[in-house]
Amino acid sequence: MNYCSRCGSIHIVHRIPDGDHRPRHVCEHCGEIFYENPRIVAGTLPEWQDQILLCRRAIEPRLGFWTLPAGFMENGETTVEAALRETWEEAHARVEPLGLYSLVNLPQGNQVFMIFRGRLLDLDFGPGAETLETRLFREEEIPWEELAFATVQHTLRFYLADRRAGAYGLHVGDIVRGPDGPAYHHRRPPPA
Amino acid sequence: MNYCSRCGSIHIVHRIPDGDHRPRHVCEHCGEIFYENPRIVAGTLPEWQDQILLCRRAIEPRLGFWTLPAGFMENGETTVEAALRETWEEAHARVEPLGLYSLVNLPQGNQVFMIFRGRLLDLDFGPGAETLETRLFREEEIPWEELAFATVQHTLRFYLADRRAGAYGLHVGDIVRGPDGPAYHHRRPPPA
Repeated sequence: MNYCSRCGSIHIVHRIPDGDHRPRHVCEHCGEIFYENPRIVAGTLPEWQDQILLCRRAIEPRLGFWTLPAGFMENGETTVEAALRETWEEAHARVEPLGLYSLVNLPQGNQVFMIFRGRLLDLDFGPGAETLETRLFREEEIPWEELAFATVQHTLRFYLADRRAGAYGLHVGDIVRGPDGPAYHHRRPPPA
Repeated sequence: MNYCSRCGSIHIVHRIPDGDHRPRHVCEHCGEIFYENPRIVAGTLPEWQDQILLCRRAIEPRLGFWTLPAGFMENGETTVEAALRETWEEAHARVEPLGLYSLVNLPQGNQVFMIFRGRLLDLDFGPGAETLETRLFREEEIPWEELAFATVQHTLRFYLADRRAGAYGLHVGDIVRGPDGPAYHHRRPPPA
């Protein structure tokens, strides 16, 4: 941030505004305060019988690695709408949404990852512009070593365990980088 | 947005960038694209035996009306951390979080509202800087006509119904303004 987007001044400082509790970019000329907030990444886990649809990424980061179809939620959408749109854009796939399944906080990346389970409506899918390849995987075929993100890895592990147990619950957790690398902390929901 | 915050140019246009699918603010001078995304409002429903803690707002919008302690999630936080921080800032209350309880999309306001149930750790609470008054309410005392937001109203109704039924589930819904005013659409989670 080099210039104030409201008045064009170069007098942008990073300080705690009056009555606030954390530093923001503030224009010393016109007084505008610029807030930055976490973004939601929404997507689906598309299932077809005992198979899961994954996408091989055509873009960085993690080009060439496998992921669930997901991306940044846009203004004017609901979380489910964002998840279905991303599923269409990345995999040209249409799913019936089955409810929120995995919510992972990435506080160091300023993101909240939200995956909905989804039932594929047909097998008429294929790579979108940001995808090299789309494919259905059985459990034993999942390319664990070639998954793009820890969020995807944990969500798939929960899903396979829940499927074996015959009951799907909401999984909430945080991924935090520590001295030994990123670690997943599961926040198990309390008994109802 | 009058000036480019990167290069200071006034040549900001609103158009669909190459390879994108929706209009953004774009600097025609340096090429910077400015994205805007929905924000998360996180908070808690603090319970003490059969009572619920509400806050009377000291700020606009809805100054003087009652609400659950909640506010914008900040960078560097998890959703639970944001909810606990807001509960402290607005009501000087400390709660043990009991899991995500209500998620309401407000697509026309570019917000996602997320409320966690919370058990008050003690009765040592009181109004923060943005609150006029904090108070515990029994069900029959809840000021339904003086609630600040529809999100709060629906979350409290779910909570009281679930408490009667003896089981708390995640409630996901959307509030969309139509010709007859805002309407709540419940997305009931599918059977597990």
